[in-house]
Amino acid sequence: MLSISGIGFAALPQPVRMTDMILHDREARGFASDNYSGIHPEVLTAIADANHGHQGSYGGDVYTRRLGEVFRAHFGDTARVFPVLTGTGANVVALQALCSRWGSVICADSGHIHVDEGGAPEKTAGLKLLPVAAQQGKLTVPAIRAEARGFDDPHRAQPQVVSLAQATELGTVYTPAEIREIAGFAHDHGMYVHLDGSRLANAAAHLGLPLRALTTDAGVDVLSYGGTKNGLLLGEAVVVLNPAVDRGTDRLRKTSMQLASKQRFIAAQFIALLAGDLWRRNATHANAMATRLHRAVRHDVEVVYPVETNAVFARLPEQALARLHDEFPFYDWDTAAGEARWMTSFDTTPEDVDRFAAAVRAHTRRP
Amino acid sequence: MLSISGIGFAALPQPVRMTDMILHDREARGFASDNYSGIHPEVLTAIADANHGHQGSYGGDVYTRRLGEVFRAHFGDTARVFPVLTGTGANVVALQALCSRWGSVICADSGHIHVDEGGAPEKTAGLKLLPVAAQQGKLTVPAIRAEARGFDDPHRAQPQVVSLAQATELGTVYTPAEIREIAGFAHDHGMYVHLDGSRLANAAAHLGLPLRALTTDAGVDVLSYGGTKNGLLLGEAVVVLNPAVDRGTDRLRKTSMQLASKQRFIAAQFIALLAGDLWRRNATHANAMATRLHRAVRHDVEVVYPVETNAVFARLPEQALARLHDEFPFYDWDTAAGEARWMTSFDTTPEDVDRFAAAVRAHTRRP
Amino acid sequence: MLSISGIGFAALPQPVRMTDMILHDREARGFASDNYSGIHPEVLTAIADANHGHQGSYGGDVYTRRLGEVFRAHFGDTARVFPVLTGTGANVVALQALCSRWGSVICADSGHIHVDEGGAPEKTAGLKLLPVAAQQGKLTVPAIRAEARGFDDPHRAQPQVVSLAQATELGTVYTPAEIREIAGFAHDHGMYVHLDGSRLANAAAHLGLPLRALTTDAGVDVLSYGGTKNGLLLGEAVVVLNPAVDRGTDRLRKTSMQLASKQRFIAAQFIALLAGDLWRRNATHANAMATRLHRAVRHDVEVVYPVETNAVFARLPEQALARLHDEFPFYDWDTAAGEARWMTSFDTTPEDVDRFAAAVRAHTRRP
Amino acid sequence: MLSISGIGFAALPQPVRMTDMILHDREARGFASDNYSGIHPEVLTAIADANHGHQGSYGGDVYTRRLGEVFRAHFGDTARVFPVLTGTGANVVALQALCSRWGSVICADSGHIHVDEGGAPEKTAGLKLLPVAAQQGKLTVPAIRAEARGFDDPHRAQPQVVSLAQATELGTVYTPAEIREIAGFAHDHGMYVHLDGSRLANAAAHLGLPLRALTTDAGVDVLSYGGTKNGLLLGEAVVVLNPAVDRGTDRLRKTSMQLASKQRFIAAQFIALLAGDLWRRNATHANAMATRLHRAVRHDVEVVYPVETNAVFARLPEQALARLHDEFPFYDWDTAAGEARWMTSFDTTPEDVDRFAAAVRAHTRRP
Repeated sequence: MLSISGIGFAALPQPVRMTDMILHDREARGFASDNYSGIHPEVLTAIADANHGHQGSYGGDVYTRRLGEVFRAHFGDTARVFPVLTGTGANVVALQALCSRWGSVICADSGHIHVDEGGAPEKTAGLKLLPVAAQQGKLTVPAIRAEARGFDDPHRAQPQVVSLAQATELGTVYTPAEIREIAGFAHDHGMYVHLDGSRLANAAAHLGLPLRALTTDAGVDVLSYGGTKNGLLLGEAVVVLNPAVDRGTDRLRKTSMQLASKQRFIAAQFIALLAGDLWRRNATHANAMATRLHRAVRHDVEVVYPVETNAVFARLPEQALARLHDEFPFYDWDTAAGEARWMTSFDTTPEDVDRFAAAVRAHTRRP
Repeated sequence: MLSISGIGFAALPQPVRMTDMILHDREARGFASDNYSGIHPEVLTAIADANHGHQGSYGGDVYTRRLGEVFRAHFGDTARVFPVLTGTGANVVALQALCSRWGSVICADSGHIHVDEGGAPEKTAGLKLLPVAAQQGKLTVPAIRAEARGFDDPHRAQPQVVSLAQATELGTVYTPAEIREIAGFAHDHGMYVHLDGSRLANAAAHLGLPLRALTTDAGVDVLSYGGTKNGLLLGEAVVVLNPAVDRGTDRLRKTSMQLASKQRFIAAQFIALLAGDLWRRNATHANAMATRLHRAVRHDVEVVYPVETNAVFARLPEQALARLHDEFPFYDWDTAAGEARWMTSFDTTPEDVDRFAAAVRAHTRRP
Repeated sequence: MLSISGIGFAALPQPVRMTDMILHDREARGFASDNYSGIHPEVLTAIADANHGHQGSYGGDVYTRRLGEVFRAHFGDTARVFPVLTGTGANVVALQALCSRWGSVICADSGHIHVDEGGAPEKTAGLKLLPVAAQQGKLTVPAIRAEARGFDDPHRAQPQVVSLAQATELGTVYTPAEIREIAGFAHDHGMYVHLDGSRLANAAAHLGLPLRALTTDAGVDVLSYGGTKNGLLLGEAVVVLNPAVDRGTDRLRKTSMQLASKQRFIAAQFIALLAGDLWRRNATHANAMATRLHRAVRHDVEVVYPVETNAVFARLPEQALARLHDEFPFYDWDTAAGEARWMTSFDTTPEDVDRFAAAVRAHTRRP
Repeated sequence: MLSISGIGFAALPQPVRMTDMILHDREARGFASDNYSGIHPEVLTAIADANHGHQGSYGGDVYTRRLGEVFRAHFGDTARVFPVLTGTGANVVALQALCSRWGSVICADSGHIHVDEGGAPEKTAGLKLLPVAAQQGKLTVPAIRAEARGFDDPHRAQPQVVSLAQATELGTVYTPAEIREIAGFAHDHGMYVHLDGSRLANAAAHLGLPLRALTTDAGVDVLSYGGTKNGLLLGEAVVVLNPAVDRGTDRLRKTSMQLASKQRFIAAQFIALLAGDLWRRNATHANAMATRLHRAVRHDVEVVYPVETNAVFARLPEQALARLHDEFPFYDWDTAAGEARWMTSFDTTPEDVDRFAAAVRAHTRRP
């Protein structure tokens, strides 16, 4: 399955014994999450390329150095990248870099940092969140404004950061103008802007824009850039775009248990993703598969949010949902409302989509 | 360099473009750290084997399930394994599982959790450490006893855990009897025992004992098991050995930002390491290389601690150190004392050792 | 002004020199807050009575012992009282006692713990809050239900506590039945109930009920009992009503910097308040003054919430507000909406109210 | 016992009922702790003077304003005072003001912040402590130097503060020159200096120096100033001496649950203590009583540390200790070593000392 050239291993103590440990069906794919997918082959190749020999740990390696160039090419000359391990970790490091001990963070009430991070922001970093009502997952200036107050009041945890996600938890996408408006409001009120970009590639692919148009050029100060859902084995990054806030991020990464010892392998994966156009190919494909699915089922189910990236949220009758679950893995988003979330990935095939759409149709259409 | 079988990727949107991104010298190796090494080929194979197709994320995959069996085989039927991402992360999760909000942890003043984790135990989990003087890196009952007091005093953070490292930061090894004695004392005083096993494999290889002899059978309650230094790309594990304390570990892992989404790849690596004897082969080889180095240089330099695992601590004249640094990467341990640390790894070759030892000799011997 | 009997001080090194340091107008009173008031004379007497001689610190004194009896008389035989220093401190200690490291707390979005505690719950104790929309400051089961989910999901900070305030930030009062309903729902879902009773006395006075009817008998597990706004110099208490959760509260109090060394003086104040009916006299009077104010102004301004305790929230034209501010201290509650908060206290006089109401009338009535 | 003039209370709803709640022996005094004592009469008078009428809460009162002048008179024009509630609270607020999220604090291993604060620095503020061996309770530059390293190492929590106590836990006193030397070393290494002055008055009285000679003039950046042990009911203060670090202290005070609502009563007490010479009278007297005790018993017991302030540490035979405990309250300091701590207070009388010394003599002298 995998043949590794002998380089460097002639001297190994024992002969290399290949173990065949394929325990799973390598052809089975569903619509549960983009993190159900595996590693893109080019990324796996990059890992193997970076293997053998010794390299400095904790970032003292040539791959991490190269990674700096790669991120500067995407995000501008002042960008500094700090590879980390999980999306939650990226957010918690980034928010600490932007927030004093007495600060708070305005975010969407449907946002990942409030809803799906096990309370890590509060529990590991004492970050107070001020969740506000979002519209289709997106923050608006009026919603932010309602919490942007009490800056001089010691009884109030000072709002110091606005954190938005691009794409949002609901798969929707902010335009650059929308981000700029929010960033302008935030900066006018002395707040910084954090962008949770665990699916930034998908948003950029949707808009047909370079990554910096949605970040550096739109006023974002610090970015959590997501690699895992875009085809990596594991890898996220904190990207400091505003050099004025680049203080302590390297320390906070360690303190937050997000510093990998063999970091060359995180860096190499990101290089594979971002040095060329793999990030965009993967995102474009995943988005296209969601669009294909949307088109195929829109007359059969109620699609709840605009399909802009790689998710389709649909409302189905209870029985139809139950039957679909029997055949395909996916998540119910809001059980009470009969709302399901279907996600596509870089490895979703048109055939996967068509098969799934056919099942949706079969289970929702009346005889 | 790496040929990947076409399975499952015929359908990918674009043809897979191989990138050759080897930026480093794949033959260069030094004595800086066992985490300067790369991925053992069998482990990389396991990653490739686990690739393709969809698998449940966050542990809902067949590799994680199998991993449970593998760890139970090593540590006993009650063992429960929780893969995590960094050694610091493993320790912080494990200690939280054992420690109430008002507890404290007795540890060696030379211990990794006190010295080298950026304050993560205190900063992310509020864990108070009570560092005590260690002997050659090892805790002793008298040293522990001095802090094992004030259990009923609300002004004192209650000592609830004794945390020891096996092997220690100085490469020394506790005998099973020593661990049992410490565990007995701890349990008699109502404290739990945590073992930081980032190099447990090396200790077990040194003693020629199975892993459980040093852990489950010696009274350890929760273990941090280290994979990265033993040949993984990245992977550590919290192993709950005492089922009575298995409460909340899965929650604490998420809260501590240590839950990987594509966990199948962490699990698959650990299976490659532990399903067979790779863990022991790697550790035995690394230890043997340190012993070889020790034997080769012991008449030229003062070796400071017993060489029991894969580290040699040596005292050298300043000039000799400077010259050696010109040729090989390694760390000074105590600059003032002229003390260097030389570490070997699973991929260190006898030739590497001999070349290094010759250089040591050349730079320390008088003309 | 104050003559202190010579007992015990004949032996003092220097003659006691009385200093007259009255810097303020002892007759000026406004409607800003019940914590603008001073110490009730009976409470000050109790402080003086508890003075002289030595008493065990940190609660090892006879006043603290007696206090236990006093609280049991009010809250039942299983109640345990832990005097603390601030309302925020009481809430943070109480919530920690009820919440594991991975838990979260459902509260009103207008609640003091979310709005006015500087983020102390998150920052000092890692407590994640799940604020939900409240109605006139009060939580409802449907609002709680929307967040009472994901108990088995490690990505979600487990909801473990419902925290409600009685009276609420808006001066409204839960009936015992309403508390019981919420507590029933919480307990049915494995959650505990915390009650922030910084103005519990006012609520009980409004309802004409004993304190236990609103707490112990209504299913509350842990109570923050407020003394300061009820006439103390300084003093709050965590009261554990459900003995099953009485683990660690004494430790958490110290850890949370809420343990007074000369605790006898906190205890003595509370005894003065609660051994007799001073708590009710003070609360009843403050409530009556708010009612008097409400009646006097209700035709001149829009009163926004039901006046049930010692606060009147009123909407006024901007100019009227400005003029009133020139004459009396009070707070704007919602500047945008022209909403002011007027609070009465144990020492507010009918004349104070009448003077203020006349000013309200004068500034709001058209010529 | 206490007659309160009717001012302002004619209008109270019910007649004031005086309760006689003296539960303790107002003449009994021991040698357990200076916080076993009560309130100095001048301080109690100040509380009564500050009573009646309304004053702004949370520091918006005239007493707090005046307090600023009083502290500037003692500590220099740049000093800013923040009244807080407990000694632990003062230390935790002060250290947070000086320490970034990734910092650590070098302190004495016998220091109160490490030993007796229930882990509050770690648990509520994530402060990592680096305890070093102290000599008679005092830090030395060599001991500090051993931990003053790794400033650029992300694996190490950066040492950012040196925290020393004056007087120390063992009653010993730093000379101004000693503090200056430590502060010089700290500042040379980019660290700040915190002084835990819960008994600063006793140290200043011992040296016959003004407070600023030991603080502002000796290079201290932030001070925890102790009032409670010096004769207050309750009151400590964070005093920022170096204006460059005066950022966030007011916020951190609230966040750390150390902001009193009726702060006028904390301020008034401190004014009573510090506007005149009460602080020095009380401290001088307490010190003199310890000296008297020391002189009386030094031929009967082994006095372990220099008696410089208001504590005598003595070693006694087990039986003598047991008999003394039957008659007088005091604490064993080190049970194993037979070491007792005897503390004097502002209200200790010469007769108290003589009676106690006679008992010591009786129980230790052979027949």
